[in-house]
Parts: sequence; structure tokens; C-alpha cells
Amino acid sequence: MKQLTAKDIEELAVGAAVLGSGGGGDPYLGKLMAKQAIEEKGPVRLLDAEEVPDDELVIPSAMMGAPAVMLEKLPNGKEPEAAFRAVESFFGKKAFAVMSIEAGGINSCIPIYTAARLGLPIVDADGMGRAFPEIPMVTFTIGGLSASPMVCCDEKGNQVTLKTIDNFWVETLSRAVTVAWGLSSMIGLYVMTGKDLKAYGVRGTLSLALEIGKRILGAARSKTSPIDSILEVTRGHRLFEGKVTDVQRDLTTGFVRGKAAFEGTDSYKGSSFALDFQNENLIGRRDGKPCAMTPDLITALDRETGRPITTEHLRYGQRVTVIGMPCAKIWRSEKGLALVGPRYFKYDLDYAPIEELMKGRSA
Amino acid sequence: MKQLTAKDIEELAVGAAVLGSGGGGDPYLGKLMAKQAIEEKGPVRLLDAEEVPDDELVIPSAMMGAPAVMLEKLPNGKEPEAAFRAVESFFGKKAFAVMSIEAGGINSCIPIYTAARLGLPIVDADGMGRAFPEIPMVTFTIGGLSASPMVCCDEKGNQVTLKTIDNFWVETLSRAVTVAWGLSSMIGLYVMTGKDLKAYGVRGTLSLALEIGKRILGAARSKTSPIDSILEVTRGHRLFEGKVTDVQRDLTTGFVRGKAAFEGTDSYKGSSFALDFQNENLIGRRDGKPCAMTPDLITALDRETGRPITTEHLRYGQRVTVIGMPCAKIWRSEKGLALVGPRYFKYDLDYAPIEELMKGRSA
Repeated sequence: MKQLTAKDIEELAVGAAVLGSGGGGDPYLGKLMAKQAIEEKGPVRLLDAEEVPDDELVIPSAMMGAPAVMLEKLPNGKEPEAAFRAVESFFGKKAFAVMSIEAGGINSCIPIYTAARLGLPIVDADGMGRAFPEIPMVTFTIGGLSASPMVCCDEKGNQVTLKTIDNFWVETLSRAVTVAWGLSSMIGLYVMTGKDLKAYGVRGTLSLALEIGKRILGAARSKTSPIDSILEVTRGHRLFEGKVTDVQRDLTTGFVRGKAAFEGTDSYKGSSFALDFQNENLIGRRDGKPCAMTPDLITALDRETGRPITTEHLRYGQRVTVIGMPCAKIWRSEKGLALVGPRYFKYDLDYAPIEELMKGRSA
Repeated sequence: MKQLTAKDIEELAVGAAVLGSGGGGDPYLGKLMAKQAIEEKGPVRLLDAEEVPDDELVIPSAMMGAPAVMLEKLPNGKEPEAAFRAVESFFGKKAFAVMSIEAGGINSCIPIYTAARLGLPIVDADGMGRAFPEIPMVTFTIGGLSASPMVCCDEKGNQVTLKTIDNFWVETLSRAVTVAWGLSSMIGLYVMTGKDLKAYGVRGTLSLALEIGKRILGAARSKTSPIDSILEVTRGHRLFEGKVTDVQRDLTTGFVRGKAAFEGTDSYKGSSFALDFQNENLIGRRDGKPCAMTPDLITALDRETGRPITTEHLRYGQRVTVIGMPCAKIWRSEKGLALVGPRYFKYDLDYAPIEELMKGRSA
């Protein structure tokens, strides 16, 4: 029986942020919350998707908005379970397990917090295998599952329940509410059966994050670079090495939209790199030519420590290695690409898998 | 037993718009809806507040947003009852009657529509005795009643339920949702007992609106001006006669905020008048000096027909008589003025009752 202890949280959070593709936010507060809940209530059982019976219910628990806002507008700690229980109350039966909706610093920690507080196990799966900015951008949408009923809770005790005709309206309305709350909301949504979870969930996201985290923190102890080791476990590619020369961000739409520019060093000297993001990194271009694109994962790592740098934390002068990793296979389906491919984000580009784009290039 | 028939709707709507103080919107669609529901389901019983037992529940039904939007984004007709029933479902007992939250073209018709559809009576009372732009601006807030749980429904079938810590958050969140829906939402809120209704409701608003409407439509048949007759039944004052010379409107905040300027005619020749509004008329100034202010009622009437002209319909060149009417007494309390007095709307003015401001002036 696998269990998540307080010690695992540190590794899980750093590994999940690598999968977070620049998004998923600073896990600082989420880590504190998850660790404290485990210390109080005991370790959280980590379930394989196969261990969830077909007719049992699984409910994702997450934070919506800008994780940085949580540091100023502290959670009261009851919101995640309030949102979870309120969603559960629509179904006349108790949930079997908590789930993570996405891989990322904050949203890998919050569901563990919720699971610990409620004494429930957490499933080793999620709806993305990475992070994405909008509510409908989960593999469950491909399976026709509804995000609704969704419940949003704030730290003051306000609660909003959405019952909608489709996932577009869940996104629009929950975004409006989250913006009204100053960009931070704890949510429960996408209630699903064990059967749906097994059909559409991305498996093993938490154990993969844990493994990546172990390699990064292990390398720190042995003073080696973990980047090759990360590439190995994620089947990833080294896209670029260089330093940040410019970052532009715009927060006016409730997202962190922007661009970062990089100048090559070492074997990448004379070369440039550009990253576009909307909370998460969307497209990486080397010398103007795409070398990885959504839904494949793109993450900037600190060149020495291999620690992931989120789009919120990119700063002028940072020395980084940008890596790309293949996404879960389901995202490469026609429905998957319609939901999260480059054209959805208004790029006039056909999706090409990272393996093809990197063929013949140095990895 | 008083009953509202389809014929009454015409009079009620025009009279309610006089009490609407420039707000409450164009009743066109609301009238059609109320008439059709009465024709299908039969007349609606009009109850005195005293007829509601202390422990029975009354639920207001209303439209939120810009009534003009309803003409482009037609209701499907099920939203008002869906919102009503969803609010009711929190209380484990059936509602005894429907209520109107405010007097105004649309929001005097919608609750009659809801009552007819549900086969419930409507109470001859409301929470304003006029119209106001924001959710907490009802006499029930003075009594400490909560607008929450509130349910908002749109014409597509989306439903949002708000449970909040105070009425400020009901306003903020329901406004965000209504704006996300393009400025139109059908709502149920402020569930109250018969006891609270009798303690804080404004009595007789519907029968007063009906009486005003009868006088306006009766005068049209006899080709006389109904304005003196309106002033008599509302204990009102003639503030100005003249023509509209300028109207400015700004819709960016989810309200219709603006100013109208008038130039005097006849005995008002050489004099000017200015009206400030936020959905409803807030302050009337003759030659720069306030002569009526919120929460007292200010309404522009067509000079010939006496029909009310809402702030949405004010146009250059219109010949109008502006009248002022004393508000319900409860609004003149300290708590009432804190909620809807001139300072709430950011005017550096102490409230003075219209009777005092008009003392010694021609009425």
C-alpha cells in the first residue's frame, strides 16, 4: 500500500511543477497546508486508478486563479473540504477518493490536503498529466464528462454553486466569480465514477511527479545536475540552454499571458529561444522555429539545480535549461487537440509531436 | 379577494414605472410574459401583507441586469420559476407567496409571471417602494435579512447558487455572473417569513402602482393630463417642466450611469434642471440647487401623457415634467440612509426630505 507522508510532499511538489509546464503556481502555501494536514491526520493512501470500483465516485479538489494571490489572501483552510463536500452532496453518496485535476505546484498539494483532512485516499491520476489554464481543458472533456456541478469557495466563507449546460459556461462563470474574489478560489468539480476515471484519466501523474522530485532533490544532495535524469524519466528533450533576456506579462484577463526571450549559452551560443505562455508554456521556438508546442509539456528549469521555474517566476538574467516532454497520448487525439492544441490558443500552427520536431536535433 | 387579471398588467406596469424612479426598465417583455401566464393559468391573487401567516415563507422573484438586453436575449420562460424553486428547495417547505423586490416596469411584471405560473398569490408589498440599482438596497437589509441563498438562472439553462456571508457579496457575485451572461439574469433571493415581511416590507406598492396606472391610462382615454392626479395619489411635487437638452450614459460598470440636462419651458422658462442617475434617478437639481434626492423618488414623465420615461429612454428634445415623491418612511431612518442616501452614491450631500426642499417653492 503506497502512502504519501509529509516528507513526500516536498518531492511531489517540485516534481509536479516540472510537469506543470510553467503553470500550476508557487506550491509554497499548498505544501505547508498538505504537510500540516498529514501531520495532524496521518499519511494519505495513494490509490491506483484500478483500485477504484467502477461505480464509486471520485471528486477532484483544486485551487483556481493566481496561486500568488493566496499568499496575500490566506486560505482559512476549510474551503477545499467545503467545496468538496458541497459537490458530493448532489450525488446522495459519499466520495470514494479525492483526485488531482492537474499536475502543478499548488494543484498537486491541495487535493492531498483535502484527502488528509477528510481521511480519504487520493488517486494516482489526474485530468491533464500537466497543467492547463482553463476548466474544460481536461481529458474528461474528451470523454464528454461535465465539470458541473462545480462549487467555488472563498476564504471568507462565501460559496458559489454552478450547474451549467456545458463546460464552457463552467469556465466563464467560475472565472467571473474567481476574479470577483480577487483571483483565488477553492473548487470541487468533475465528479466522476471509477469507470470514467479509468477510461479518461491520465494515469500515474502523482507517482511520476514524486519520481521527478526525488531525482531533483537527490541531485541537490549529491551536487550533480538532475536534468538528464529528468529527461530520462519523462522521455523528454533538452530544447535550449541560455539566459532570460526579456519577460512580458499581462494579467488583465484573469490569466498570466506573456512571452519570454532567451539568449543561448555554451553549445546554444548564437542561438535564441522564445516562449509564449498563458499561465502555462504554450510554444517554444528556437531561432524562430517551433520545437515544442501544446499539448506537449515545456518547462524552464534552473540550469544548476534542475528546479522548475514557473512563468510567474521567470526573471531577467536567470540561467535556464528549457525542456520539452511528450504529453499523455489522449491529448494527441483529434478531440484532444481541438481542446488544447495550438489552434485553440489562436496560433496558426498544426500540432506536431515533440519527437518529430526534435528529430535530428541535438537532444 | 383582490385579483390581478391580464387587463391589470398594463396599468400596473405603467404605474410601477412611475414608482421606478427612472429605473426598473422597459416593461414590454415583462408585460407580455405576465399577461400570457395569466391567460394560461388564470388571475393572480393579490394578498395584503397581513394575510401572510408569520411562519410562512415569501420569496421575491426578479430580473437582474439591463432589461433592454432581454429583448435581444429572449428569456426561455422557465428561468423565473427555476430560480424561485431552487431558492425554495433550501428551506424544506413550500413558499406561501411570491413577492416583488422593487417597483419598476420589469420587476413588477416578472413576479406576477412567476406567481401565475406557479399558481401562487403575490403579496401587495415590496422591498423598496421604488427601484434601486443594487441587491442590498432593500428595506429587508435594514432588518438584517440575508439576500442569500440567491439563485440566478439564464435563458440557456445555466444556474448559479450563491451562499454568502453578507449582502455585499451577493451583489458582487451576482453582478459578476449577470455581466458574464451579457447583463440579464432571472433571480430568486431574500427568502423571508411573513413576520419579517410585515416588519420590514413596504406595504401596498402594487396597489399604488395600479392606481397610478389607472390614472395615466384613464387620462389618455379622456385626453386630459394625468400629472396632477399622479401628484395627488403619490403626495408628489412637480420639480420641473422643460425639454431634454443632453443625456450622457456609461454602461461599463454593469449599470447605466449618467446625467441628463433640461431647459425650462412655460413657467420654468430661463431655469435649468439636471438629473443624475445610476439605473435610477438619484439627484434632481434646479438651477444647480438640489430639490429632490435619493431615497425620495424622482421620475421624468412625458408632459402630455404623463407616461414615465426611464433613464434608458431619455432622449434629446423630449418634453417632460419631472416629479418628485416622498419615499417609504423606513428609508429615512439612519440605517436606511446609510444604505441608499446620497452619501452612499458618493454625493457630498446630507439627505433632506423632498417636502423640506420644496417648501416655499411652487409645487
